Amino acid sequence: MENMEIIFETATELLERKAFKRLRDLLTELNPADVAELFSELNDKDVTVAFRILPKDFAGDVFSYMENDKCEVLINSFSDAELRDILNELWLDDTVDIIEDMPAGVVTRILKNTDPAVRRQINELLKYPEDSAGSIMTVEYVSLKKELTVEQCFNKIRRESIDKETVYTCYVTEKRKLIGTVSVKDLLMAESTAVVSDIMETNVIFVEAHEDKETVAQMFSKYDVLALPVVDKEERIVGIVTVDDAMDVIEEAATEDIERMAAITSTDKPYLKTGVFSIWLNRIPWLLILMLSATFTGIIISGFENALSVFPVLIAFIPMLMGTGGNAGGQSSATVIRGLALGEIELRDIPRVLFKEFRVALLCGVTVAVTGFLKILLIDNLLLNMDVSYREMLVVSLTLVVTVFFAKLVGCTLPILAKAIKLDPAVMASPFITTIVDVLSLIVYFFFAMRILNI
Amino acid sequence: MENMEIIFETATELLERKAFKRLRDLLTELNPADVAELFSELNDKDVTVAFRILPKDFAGDVFSYMENDKCEVLINSFSDAELRDILNELWLDDTVDIIEDMPAGVVTRILKNTDPAVRRQINELLKYPEDSAGSIMTVEYVSLKKELTVEQCFNKIRRESIDKETVYTCYVTEKRKLIGTVSVKDLLMAESTAVVSDIMETNVIFVEAHEDKETVAQMFSKYDVLALPVVDKEERIVGIVTVDDAMDVIEEAATEDIERMAAITSTDKPYLKTGVFSIWLNRIPWLLILMLSATFTGIIISGFENALSVFPVLIAFIPMLMGTGGNAGGQSSATVIRGLALGEIELRDIPRVLFKEFRVALLCGVTVAVTGFLKILLIDNLLLNMDVSYREMLVVSLTLVVTVFFAKLVGCTLPILAKAIKLDPAVMASPFITTIVDVLSLIVYFFFAMRILNI
Repeated sequence: MENMEIIFETATELLERKAFKRLRDLLTELNPADVAELFSELNDKDVTVAFRILPKDFAGDVFSYMENDKCEVLINSFSDAELRDILNELWLDDTVDIIEDMPAGVVTRILKNTDPAVRRQINELLKYPEDSAGSIMTVEYVSLKKELTVEQCFNKIRRESIDKETVYTCYVTEKRKLIGTVSVKDLLMAESTAVVSDIMETNVIFVEAHEDKETVAQMFSKYDVLALPVVDKEERIVGIVTVDDAMDVIEEAATEDIERMAAITSTDKPYLKTGVFSIWLNRIPWLLILMLSATFTGIIISGFENALSVFPVLIAFIPMLMGTGGNAGGQSSATVIRGLALGEIELRDIPRVLFKEFRVALLCGVTVAVTGFLKILLIDNLLLNMDVSYREMLVVSLTLVVTVFFAKLVGCTLPILAKAIKLDPAVMASPFITTIVDVLSLIVYFFFAMRILNI
Repeated sequence: MENMEIIFETATELLERKAFKRLRDLLTELNPADVAELFSELNDKDVTVAFRILPKDFAGDVFSYMENDKCEVLINSFSDAELRDILNELWLDDTVDIIEDMPAGVVTRILKNTDPAVRRQINELLKYPEDSAGSIMTVEYVSLKKELTVEQCFNKIRRESIDKETVYTCYVTEKRKLIGTVSVKDLLMAESTAVVSDIMETNVIFVEAHEDKETVAQMFSKYDVLALPVVDKEERIVGIVTVDDAMDVIEEAATEDIERMAAITSTDKPYLKTGVFSIWLNRIPWLLILMLSATFTGIIISGFENALSVFPVLIAFIPMLMGTGGNAGGQSSATVIRGLALGEIELRDIPRVLFKEFRVALLCGVTVAVTGFLKILLIDNLLLNMDVSYREMLVVSLTLVVTVFFAKLVGCTLPILAKAIKLDPAVMASPFITTIVDVLSLIVYFFFAMRILNI
């Protein structure tokens, strides 16, 4: 990592001194992903200069790792011939990824500079819904016929591999229908005269092109495969998803969940590349909605203004009660949201989850209440001289039990309900749960206060 | 997915009816990962029965996908001969994974039933720290000498591939030092008489065995590779990490972060497999710590009891102010924590992050304050007749601006500070930030109240 810093500095210096030959030698020694990272730190003018000194095929690799804003800068600086060269070097799924994020003018230029066959494939790929398996697949896979011998297979793989993103799993088709897979490992282990139909795996795991891409990514982690074939409704193979794209989906999905759980509208742009205004726009709606929902807590407190003036010490515990309730609910919701995302919890598990949280909630509620009681006794009264009466302590402790209990049940129920009605469970996380639990805890608090303190 | 449910039911029924032949036919048609999932739903007795009817090599695959509690049940039911058979079918890294989670007695039995060479390798692997690259690597890779021809390489790969987890990237070594890599794709594309040293890639990405496994997993997503070589301090290759393990690390890391961000001590056990007592134990310490920290809010409110009795309407806004502050801070901390985890934000980016959050905080603060002012005017006063004076509205609005502003700065600073002193940034999330912001918001609130309302 520290090495990288030094290389970055050297590269910038060489660029400034226009020592292009040495810069080229340095850059081509690096991994294309690292060069892309270096380029992301350069200004637009330097990027266009530095990019041009790279050898053609290396430049294509670097381009595929670059962030979309820099890609756009480069495309705008390319002549049509240069653009064609780069597009030739890219895998089709990378081209489609870039197209999806570019303004219309750039898209037109890209499509104009691809040959008709590729353009048709691109347009096919662009038709799949944004979060579908189809949107992340590539059409560059090796397909084999079941009559081929191992030797013929190797010849075909050799001929085609330069244009295929992965050759290690080949797909056996009959009238375009997927009937089996053969791995290169299987081919290597077989006699060269063996026939595909004898060595192929017929028990194929595949996904439908409209399947949600997160579900597809989960299948990679479940089945430990390097690629998954994608089929249409007639079970004809239309493409494959490779493990590197699945990994990106898994990371993006986790980021999205974490953002939603923190009441942020999620974007795919990295934080440092996102403008202040966009960040504000992603955060402010939830802040306002949650603030406005707090009107209810205001109403409840106003209704008990007189009681609070008689027992002013009760006010001091409001933040603690609401905070503890919010944390307790947030814990349950986070657990359930993550369990749902990983497929560890399914809708049919609702009774088990509820029963488990029910018991955890009781345990937590009682522990928190007892500790709360002792805290008031020892810290608030003895240490801070707050003079809380035993009856008031009882009110606070009982509220803690009931609040924690309800908070946990609300926290585990709402994400599952959201999932049941096809909403994203991640929205039902701490900020939202807290707002509900705030209201609940106040109601419980004043209920006990009325009963026990005879207000 | 629905298909799976039907298969599960059929399997359970066949098992009950002791129709073992038909059960075996059904199970071997499935993917081993699915069989493992099915087994996880069976009781211990049924698992041991069902497992025994599987063909030996298939059983090994299923075993490697099973959860550790069921593995333990099975191992305890195995004779030594059966255990040896299964261990022979497992990849070494899977064996090590299992050993790491088993009680001492089971570990001794496993080690007793592996042959000395393998036992030595297992013991080597067990020496690496828990979260290191060494702990997730396998030693079953193909190594080549640089003098070999392509044909000789293929012969070696064919001979060894049955025992290697992946053959698609081969590692070229000289006196055990890693000097290059050759992919099977490269070998396929080359002439059969070509020599390794002419076609190998010498610019190798590798990791040191003690490198943090999350960093290693991030490298897979950055460089889009299927395996990464692991070297010792002398740059001698000691193993490889494969992409399926990297993917698991990425998922686990995200789960861990989500749990820590929700104030839960994280475990690797799936939720439904975790006992109520363990869940309680993972959640209660944080609930209690956060509850006890709320003592400060209690102190502040107690100190202003008299003021609050003069302006009782101020109490009604406390939940809204604290809630909004907590949400605002939680947004910033979640963004920064995720950015740090993905490597999008580095320590050197602190000034950029601070400046960005500074501006976002100002924008959010002003928006929230203006909306808060209007909300009190239109909802609280007009609709709910709460009779809030203009001065009180000013106090609330100013508190909103300042609280949101500070909350966001605290929220973005603490995770970075945690990272700087080598703590996990994920702990500095919403629950913790909220506790600090609660105190801050009350101080600000009462400060403005004193000034503007002349208390």
